[in-house]
Amino acid sequence: MAENFDRAAVQAVLDEAAGQGRDSLTALEGKKVCDAYGIPTPAEALATSEIEAVAYAEKIGFPVVLKIVSPDILHKTEAGGVLVGQSTAEEVAAGFRTIVANAKAYNADAEILGVQVQQQLTSGQEVIIGATTDTTFGKIVAFGLGGVLVEVLKDVTFRLAPTSQDEALSMIDGIKAAQILKGVRGAEPADRAALSTIIQRVSQLVTDFPQLSEVDLNPVLVTASGATAVDVRILIDPAAAVVPERFSQEEILASMNRIMKPAAVAVIGASAEEGKIGNSVMKNLVNGGYRGEIYPINPKASEILDRKAFKSIADVPGDVDVAVFAIPAKFVAAALEEVGAKGVAGAILIPSGFGETGNQELQDEVLAIARKHGVRILGPNIYGYYYTPENLCATFCTPYDVKGQVALTSQSGGIGMAILGFSRSAKMGVSAIVGVGNKADIDEDDLLTFFESDDNTGLIAMHLEDLKDGRSFAETAKRVSTKKPIVVLKAGRTAQGAKAASSHTGALAGDDKVYDDILRQSGVIRAPGLNDMLEYARGIPLLPTPAGENVVIITGAGGSGVLLSDACVDNGLSLMEIPEDLDQAFRKFIPPFGAAGNPVDITGGEPPSTYRNTIALGLSDERVHSLILGYWHTIVTPPMVFAKLVVAVVEEFRAKGIHKPVVASLSGDIEVEEASDYLYQHGVVAYPYTTEKPVAVLGAKYRWARAAGLLGPAS
Amino acid sequence: MAENFDRAAVQAVLDEAAGQGRDSLTALEGKKVCDAYGIPTPAEALATSEIEAVAYAEKIGFPVVLKIVSPDILHKTEAGGVLVGQSTAEEVAAGFRTIVANAKAYNADAEILGVQVQQQLTSGQEVIIGATTDTTFGKIVAFGLGGVLVEVLKDVTFRLAPTSQDEALSMIDGIKAAQILKGVRGAEPADRAALSTIIQRVSQLVTDFPQLSEVDLNPVLVTASGATAVDVRILIDPAAAVVPERFSQEEILASMNRIMKPAAVAVIGASAEEGKIGNSVMKNLVNGGYRGEIYPINPKASEILDRKAFKSIADVPGDVDVAVFAIPAKFVAAALEEVGAKGVAGAILIPSGFGETGNQELQDEVLAIARKHGVRILGPNIYGYYYTPENLCATFCTPYDVKGQVALTSQSGGIGMAILGFSRSAKMGVSAIVGVGNKADIDEDDLLTFFESDDNTGLIAMHLEDLKDGRSFAETAKRVSTKKPIVVLKAGRTAQGAKAASSHTGALAGDDKVYDDILRQSGVIRAPGLNDMLEYARGIPLLPTPAGENVVIITGAGGSGVLLSDACVDNGLSLMEIPEDLDQAFRKFIPPFGAAGNPVDITGGEPPSTYRNTIALGLSDERVHSLILGYWHTIVTPPMVFAKLVVAVVEEFRAKGIHKPVVASLSGDIEVEEASDYLYQHGVVAYPYTTEKPVAVLGAKYRWARAAGLLGPAS
Repeated sequence: MAENFDRAAVQAVLDEAAGQGRDSLTALEGKKVCDAYGIPTPAEALATSEIEAVAYAEKIGFPVVLKIVSPDILHKTEAGGVLVGQSTAEEVAAGFRTIVANAKAYNADAEILGVQVQQQLTSGQEVIIGATTDTTFGKIVAFGLGGVLVEVLKDVTFRLAPTSQDEALSMIDGIKAAQILKGVRGAEPADRAALSTIIQRVSQLVTDFPQLSEVDLNPVLVTASGATAVDVRILIDPAAAVVPERFSQEEILASMNRIMKPAAVAVIGASAEEGKIGNSVMKNLVNGGYRGEIYPINPKASEILDRKAFKSIADVPGDVDVAVFAIPAKFVAAALEEVGAKGVAGAILIPSGFGETGNQELQDEVLAIARKHGVRILGPNIYGYYYTPENLCATFCTPYDVKGQVALTSQSGGIGMAILGFSRSAKMGVSAIVGVGNKADIDEDDLLTFFESDDNTGLIAMHLEDLKDGRSFAETAKRVSTKKPIVVLKAGRTAQGAKAASSHTGALAGDDKVYDDILRQSGVIRAPGLNDMLEYARGIPLLPTPAGENVVIITGAGGSGVLLSDACVDNGLSLMEIPEDLDQAFRKFIPPFGAAGNPVDITGGEPPSTYRNTIALGLSDERVHSLILGYWHTIVTPPMVFAKLVVAVVEEFRAKGIHKPVVASLSGDIEVEEASDYLYQHGVVAYPYTTEKPVAVLGAKYRWARAAGLLGPAS
Repeated sequence: MAENFDRAAVQAVLDEAAGQGRDSLTALEGKKVCDAYGIPTPAEALATSEIEAVAYAEKIGFPVVLKIVSPDILHKTEAGGVLVGQSTAEEVAAGFRTIVANAKAYNADAEILGVQVQQQLTSGQEVIIGATTDTTFGKIVAFGLGGVLVEVLKDVTFRLAPTSQDEALSMIDGIKAAQILKGVRGAEPADRAALSTIIQRVSQLVTDFPQLSEVDLNPVLVTASGATAVDVRILIDPAAAVVPERFSQEEILASMNRIMKPAAVAVIGASAEEGKIGNSVMKNLVNGGYRGEIYPINPKASEILDRKAFKSIADVPGDVDVAVFAIPAKFVAAALEEVGAKGVAGAILIPSGFGETGNQELQDEVLAIARKHGVRILGPNIYGYYYTPENLCATFCTPYDVKGQVALTSQSGGIGMAILGFSRSAKMGVSAIVGVGNKADIDEDDLLTFFESDDNTGLIAMHLEDLKDGRSFAETAKRVSTKKPIVVLKAGRTAQGAKAASSHTGALAGDDKVYDDILRQSGVIRAPGLNDMLEYARGIPLLPTPAGENVVIITGAGGSGVLLSDACVDNGLSLMEIPEDLDQAFRKFIPPFGAAGNPVDITGGEPPSTYRNTIALGLSDERVHSLILGYWHTIVTPPMVFAKLVVAVVEEFRAKGIHKPVVASLSGDIEVEEASDYLYQHGVVAYPYTTEKPVAVLGAKYRWARAAGLLGPAS
């Protein structure tokens, strides 16, 4: 934004308000702020006489609104100090007299500065544009239609401030009732450029002046040629300007690289005793195959699991990168002092008994010690973490060794265990599983930054219940997601549903809608549930990035074709309109009563060659970007025959350099389970007994590819 | 509806319109129809002079609308024949002159009957009430808010006509923007009674006069004390009065009982040759363990699978209930004549090559033969059917023998195979699996009627792409669903999404929204996808019907608790507000840093006794109606220990006569899969790695129980 706003004018207004100890601006001040940032407001002037009022009204144009201006009259309407729809010079003159008389009758001592003569806008669609200070994301800007649409239907959308022109336009197009602004019932389309300009300017205003805790332009009236903020309401709060502590990208990477790829790990509270956490951690480190140094720390042991033990980490001869804490909470602070003195990069705090049990004081004390020594803390209250490229299982859970490119994190231990079990059951290739627990220090932002630079990681999936610094996360995610898909399961999304109806931006910003919009703005794929997050994580890395929006369904079961089409609509996928020549080409391979078009229904009784030929055609035609297969179990083409032919034809095209996403839904007797597994193991995302899951995974891949700017348009 | 409507007046209007060959009513006729059915319209009168116009206006009350009345002027506005907002006697007099002059200028030859003086309503919320003739459901009634809400957001709801008072009220409360009618921004609530009365009367009107193909009251203006239909538009179409052919419940049962529980089955086209459909059917009948008579029919064989074969069904000595056709389509008609002559109840037409390949003529011919003989047809183009209580596998697929109370039907063979595979994999107890294919004759309605009376069936799950007679289905489902849950997967639900914006009821009635509303009205549980249908079918019969809305989550993992709470909101479940005494009781069992409230978070490191005690408390307290368990895999309480303790405590309470639904989400390493299976086998609906599925099944059970009127209110 290189625009030349009059920041000094705003500062002057704020200084005056601050001088008077006010936490809100007057209407006139609000107008000055709008003027300074080029936000149109109704023309107005302060008249001190009937004659002036009439002159101003004639200059502004009828009709006008008249409002009493008096520092002693706050509730103008109650005082009879507002008259709308004054349409002639006579009405304005009489109105001036009436208002002044009413004001004097209301408060004989009131100082009357005059009567404000304001342009009365008589047409246009009401919208609301606002900005507020979100506890998670900081400055956010809001857009919605005015009136009941925003109050009752909560049809409002949010972005981080400041916004770009494209983002502002995406807000206007992103509300459910967007069609209204495009013109319905023959109305002219609203001036989207004018609206997006106001959105941008409001977002810049609160960015430049973070002490503006809330700005409400409500309503803004938009016509085919312009938009005007009719009412302006601005709140001030110095606390809204506070920026959270942040580490630089370099600082994060310096610590995280040592933590995730340590040359030496100490286990504080290592134990030889079965069932102790300090024993489980030692076993997992040793049996997991970690090849760096492992130093058990235990004041009472000389050797644990054939490793020399040390009374204190201070006694360890070499450098130590990571210290895993397997001791009760009350001993952590003292041990952390020693760990810090040793120059350890990361303290992995497995123990619970901190913030989550109400002992925030202890957690703060431990964090202060860590900061003093430059140690980063993972946890407390976690199961630990895995980093498979280093065979590192720094956890009290069971080891995991299926290497792959999926990194997963969880805020909850229970969800971490579900990640572990699912991964093992699905043989999902994993680079890392990390518990973040109470997030006293290291959070998703730090992990994203590490995984971004980590060649072993191709996708990041995160379970989270909150974000310590949502703005930092959003900015990092926006950067990372252009390179690697990020899947987020945001739990607690319905907690804020009960907020009362209100059209103030602050009240509209119910947690979840803000999360939803800003995660999308950041290119994050939001998973609707735990199982979806796990399936997306498993499937997305296997699918090549599609080159465009054209999806084709090839199905042996017409019934599956219908359900797969439903699923495409549900997941925002575009069924390609098959061009005539391609339609003819498909028809060559299918029975005369089969249906080309899309879905391509090859019918149920077909031999393997029909599946093969139609799939090969879909892969070879450059206009087709993705395939969804619907298989129907028959004697003619049994499940494993289908699976093998699909893998053969997909691999044949891969060998030619043609990579397209292929997913499959298998309907049949239990042999389809083995066939689905075989397909999955060979890069075709396949499921039995469901038409929804394969399409959901493909849809998630598309959501990422679109946000990352990797797709061409639909033909 | 015992109301005394003036049907003769409507008939007179319709007779006149019919006499003139019109397919729509004039505004005046529309008003007469409304008057006859007690639907309020604005006061109005026909003035033939200025003086009359002024007199009427003064009687009606200002402002008024003036409209030219001429049979020769259809487009009044275009002719300058409408004036609104006439607020004084002078305006009305002048307006009369203006309108008449405009009309004469527009068409000098027009016969001018006068000027309509109509009450102009100046306040109230716009709503739309309408009725249309749906191709599937026949007469349906619609309700929505007026203007952009209905046009852009499609915020409209439908019910079968006629509606009850409760149903009409449920429409008013059922739109998304319902809050608007309850009063927002300090507005008074709208007169719901007046609206529901109009809905009922419109629904009765189209029921009494089915040739009214569409009735649009748009807008209806509703205030705090009354509602008035401002514009009335009525279309006539004699075809809209056609009622589909129906069998009586007794006729259906007479046939279906013989078909589902046959004493003798003939296989037309039975074969000894491996790979032939006629061979697979024979094998499945024999190997499936069917104990009735099996008669192979084959002109060239004397014996098939050790059964005496007959050249023709005419040669079979005894009665035959069912004939399974395993011959090509072209031979079906002739064979069906013989089958009909034999007095067979049901012809199971496996062959394809009928309507689905474009050969509707052959299908119609076959149906005519069946009707002539009183034979009911299942199919054509199906895999056949299973009825496990009779060990009957009349299909070319593999046999299925896990008996249970779930009956499943599918319109598509592919989906039928998915049903079979899922059932076998999940060991789901099944009473029947039926393919309905082209539904030339037997449809979901017939099957519902049979399963209603079938003691072996406790739940019916149906995959369908369309309904031949949606009204009959809806009426049957409404009756059956009060006794047995009906789960429906309606495919093709997004096909009609592209209809253009319009506020005519007919255009608003996009297929899927009508299906959705009317299936719900019928007490049907709609499954969002194939896998959901299967999981609902499997889980719902295992769960006891809850006594009320109070759901309690007991979880070892706080993270699961949050996700389970999200899932409760998603599935319309009410988390109980735990009373103080119950909260205290829970707290006795959980650590001091655990969280009571709801979810009850017992924390992760707890022994089996903590799970046991809290679950027992939830089961024993009468105010708690359902339990959702969140398990977290730990060494202290391993998965199978958890599973067994849950089953033990649930069975202990069952033995005491206390039956409450209990579902569970298991987070952990792969041992949780075995534990989930064990729980499921013992009546606790449990899944690993998902917090969504167990809650979705419980939610489906609740949707059914609520619709069937079996629940008490939430405390």
